[in-house]
Amino acid sequence: MQTIRYVLVGLGNLGRRFCEVIAEKTPLLRERYSLELVLVGAADSRGAAYDGHGLDPRRVAQLKRDGGSVSAYPGAGRGGWDALSLVEAADADLLLEALPVNLDKGAEPGLSCIRAAMRQGMHVVAPDKGPLVVAYRELHDLAKANGVQLRFDGTVAGGLPAINLGARDLRGAIVQRIETVPNLVTGYVMDMLADGVAWDAALERARAEGVLEADAAWDLDGWDAAAKLVILANAVLDYPATLDGVARSGIAAVGAEELASARREGCCYRLLACAERQPDGDYGLSVAPTRLSPEHPLGRLGRKQMGVVYTTDIYGVITAIIDEPNPVPSAMTMLRDLLDIYGA
Amino acid sequence: MQTIRYVLVGLGNLGRRFCEVIAEKTPLLRERYSLELVLVGAADSRGAAYDGHGLDPRRVAQLKRDGGSVSAYPGAGRGGWDALSLVEAADADLLLEALPVNLDKGAEPGLSCIRAAMRQGMHVVAPDKGPLVVAYRELHDLAKANGVQLRFDGTVAGGLPAINLGARDLRGAIVQRIETVPNLVTGYVMDMLADGVAWDAALERARAEGVLEADAAWDLDGWDAAAKLVILANAVLDYPATLDGVARSGIAAVGAEELASARREGCCYRLLACAERQPDGDYGLSVAPTRLSPEHPLGRLGRKQMGVVYTTDIYGVITAIIDEPNPVPSAMTMLRDLLDIYGA
Repeated sequence: MQTIRYVLVGLGNLGRRFCEVIAEKTPLLRERYSLELVLVGAADSRGAAYDGHGLDPRRVAQLKRDGGSVSAYPGAGRGGWDALSLVEAADADLLLEALPVNLDKGAEPGLSCIRAAMRQGMHVVAPDKGPLVVAYRELHDLAKANGVQLRFDGTVAGGLPAINLGARDLRGAIVQRIETVPNLVTGYVMDMLADGVAWDAALERARAEGVLEADAAWDLDGWDAAAKLVILANAVLDYPATLDGVARSGIAAVGAEELASARREGCCYRLLACAERQPDGDYGLSVAPTRLSPEHPLGRLGRKQMGVVYTTDIYGVITAIIDEPNPVPSAMTMLRDLLDIYGA
Repeated sequence: MQTIRYVLVGLGNLGRRFCEVIAEKTPLLRERYSLELVLVGAADSRGAAYDGHGLDPRRVAQLKRDGGSVSAYPGAGRGGWDALSLVEAADADLLLEALPVNLDKGAEPGLSCIRAAMRQGMHVVAPDKGPLVVAYRELHDLAKANGVQLRFDGTVAGGLPAINLGARDLRGAIVQRIETVPNLVTGYVMDMLADGVAWDAALERARAEGVLEADAAWDLDGWDAAAKLVILANAVLDYPATLDGVARSGIAAVGAEELASARREGCCYRLLACAERQPDGDYGLSVAPTRLSPEHPLGRLGRKQMGVVYTTDIYGVITAIIDEPNPVPSAMTMLRDLLDIYGA
């Protein structure tokens, strides 16, 4: 039995769900992989908790479901203790960095947490896009220099192993094109607009259902899709893409009339992120609302579906799609990454 | 630069294509992965060739394209030298076992070649289904005992990384169901029948196009799909499936009238292989021609498309589809597996 002591920073949708599900997976992980996971520390925006003997993930999840903070964890919680301080103080093997994306603040505090963890010899799993977008190459090199692993399969297209598929199974290939619909809410809003729902009403409905974040522009203006494309390009294409290098237009670029007309003709619009290989070997990167015929591999995505299409020289065209009814698959990419690191 | 000396047994469709493409990939493999691949031995049904300094894969492919045998390779070929003897005599790091499936003969000579290679400390890549179907557990254990790796991503659904996706990216999940259309020719024949082409004429056309093997029953009666399902069940579900345990019916089980009627109603038939989890944790395995609505994730597969659907507890429903215009993707799974083994 191998024991893995881990710290989880970020207890939003992903972090909380992870705590709920991982508790149920304990017997399976013991039996199937001889792994014992011990959550030794956790942090949210109000504080943190640490116990070298282990916190109960169920209890952490319960505190969050009740609207509280992990800083109230009996005997281990401390108000105002921040994520970075927790990571620096922790005796652990692995950091799960599930903080909210925070590009405005230079991807902090996630970026500092990851750097600190690696310097302490901890492996890192990060479904948080921010640090990867801001400092892909630096983090890649830092992991190597410290002999630790960095995994981030959860950054793109929820629970779909879009990065793993591209980065591992297409090794040896030249990828001519990546097309991805890596985001649910933009398709949902465009489908509502195509149905004749007004812009404000569509946004309000998406917000009420909890699928549109407070910062709506992040999704609707294509920043989220662009961030995911930047990570895909770096991880799969080994192409040093940056957010500035993505030609980006948001879903407002296409009018309600055109959306409705596409619908009548059996087509749909999705916010498509695309990397296209140029004759010189560089890639052109774009994010734009795109009319997809039903024959396109992503042309029939349902409301809860995301996907990726790889067009390659030696592996034909490979499409992968996930139907993700709730955020559990996104959260559990942290388990996928963890099992990857520990070779289970 | 790491040099990998490999032996390739089997120079049919996959082996020959591999030789053609790998020669073109030499600069990319050097530059991207610092790998130098050296083909030291190759065998076909008429003989073999060995040269410790390396054979030219282009030359091997040319001999086969011209209808000859590798035994005619200048200075290195020897008529009547069989695959097993070549493997036993070779000084190499890796065996690529791309022999034709031969379940009638106990998966020989492939099975013996794999055993011999492993005992000599060679890693093994096998797109040949036979040995995996006959002796999955034995080969798995033998690899472990000899400290070598065994990869076989090419056994299921051509160039689609169906096994890799299931065995790696779904770790930690309980797979409730696998559905796969792992074979092209059965769908093609059923589509022709639905179009009103007579059975004999459909088979003749498929044969003339080179997509139906001499032993048509292997595909049409569902043996090929069942063999692939057995490998998937062992590799992804860790379930000790055998060919006997698959409830199997071939495409003749569905009449031309029903095929045409399905077509009129916008549906299609595919030979679907399915593993379904039972309440006791075992899996029920079946292969049968199945009517698929266009809403089914595999309900719109084109003539050159294969796919797999994983329904899971924590990763939602994940579908992967390949569009494979020719056998190159199937052949190049050997490169994928090789790069996997050498961690490039």
